[in-house]
Amino acid sequence: MPIIEMHLLEGRTTEQKSGAAKAITDAITSSLGVRAESVRILITEHRSAEFYVAGVAPALKAQQAADAELNKAED
Amino acid sequence: MPIIEMHLLEGRTTEQKSGAAKAITDAITSSLGVRAESVRILITEHRSAEFYVAGVAPALKAQQAADAELNKAED
Amino acid sequence: MPIIEMHLLEGRTTEQKSGAAKAITDAITSSLGVRAESVRILITEHRSAEFYVAGVAPALKAQQAADAELNKAED
Amino acid sequence: MPIIEMHLLEGRTTEQKSGAAKAITDAITSSLGVRAESVRILITEHRSAEFYVAGVAPALKAQQAADAELNKAED
Amino acid sequence: MPIIEMHLLEGRTTEQKSGAAKAITDAITSSLGVRAESVRILITEHRSAEFYVAGVAPALKAQQAADAELNKAED
Amino acid sequence: MPIIEMHLLEGRTTEQKSGAAKAITDAITSSLGVRAESVRILITEHRSAEFYVAGVAPALKAQQAADAELNKAED
Repeated sequence: MPIIEMHLLEGRTTEQKSGAAKAITDAITSSLGVRAESVRILITEHRSAEFYVAGVAPALKAQQAADAELNKAED
Repeated sequence: MPIIEMHLLEGRTTEQKSGAAKAITDAITSSLGVRAESVRILITEHRSAEFYVAGVAPALKAQQAADAELNKAED
Repeated sequence: MPIIEMHLLEGRTTEQKSGAAKAITDAITSSLGVRAESVRILITEHRSAEFYVAGVAPALKAQQAADAELNKAED
Repeated sequence: MPIIEMHLLEGRTTEQKSGAAKAITDAITSSLGVRAESVRILITEHRSAEFYVAGVAPALKAQQAADAELNKAED
Repeated sequence: MPIIEMHLLEGRTTEQKSGAAKAITDAITSSLGVRAESVRILITEHRSAEFYVAGVAPALKAQQAADAELNKAED
Repeated sequence: MPIIEMHLLEGRTTEQKSGAAKAITDAITSSLGVRAESVRILITEHRSAEFYVAGVAPALKAQQAADAELNKAED
């Protein structure tokens, strides 16, 4: 039955998501010996303010740093 | 406590989602003998590029086929 | 695609779980107009110390109250 | 490893979500004695038509009541 | 961040699960260009009475058929 | 509604899990201004072969190292 939920940060293209789904399906059928048809993958995308490590949102921080740089450059 | 997470493809109306939530709640209270108040349902919607069977996104494929038909019709 | 994850407290029989899965599947096919074959249900059971409302585990509390009653009765 | 998935109704600001993630991380490191770096939190936001208690969507109901009030006021 | 939750039927060995986790991690790092260190995989195993397709538990059915065969053979 | 799913490695006591649930509930009510009664927490425990970082199971590795040490000591 393998059912996979994959959580990603927003921003990948359809091609990247399709490529990852294809590669993961191959990885599962090879390693577990199940039929490809039985493998289902659900992707949930999260915005930068929706993923935290140690209480900090790495994508949000990166974005804020980029914005600050931009503001400085525009001064 | 039953807590249900339901994953759906995008595109249902509020009425359809409410109807499904009502029907599922009834199904659970009847079959498990719990109070309706204890049943919580969370719906997560996925776009066509976020659900894969056998490494292929069925909704994406249907959409691309429809677009191709449309393009042909417009030629 | 509907994929459903149902979280339950431990203790239901196989018959109860099968009955609930059947009833939920019927509820979904009727309300959303999808084929039964496309409905997948995953059940995850949780022990009494693994579900909390307002920071308290209701099933754990019920169990401890029952144990206390039993102890009193045995005195 | 604690990995936390938090389901919220839409509508909180980035500051509120960041504040909650920080507070939850502190709660986990204090109570379980794990390193902050090992705590990961994923937030999934749900719209008002995507959360049901007893088969009814409380946020949807609140919204419809507010709309009705508004309409009355506009008469 | 890719965080993956994989739902499997019970019964795989530690070697099979480790092999699948390794293969999936490789598939993700190659297809999405993320560092292996950022890939986290959680496996949840489900018993035969905890997975349903079209309201029927395929693994439970297979088990019951096998038991019936065994009983017949023992007659 | 906050509904929280917390994934933990097996091995915590009931007291530790209850303590974490209480602390997380307090963190959420303070930071998001919701009633404690609306906060639900589900804990799912994972065995050492069910959690992977970079394709390796840290808890499994720690266990195997400990076993190897024990074997050496017993020689």
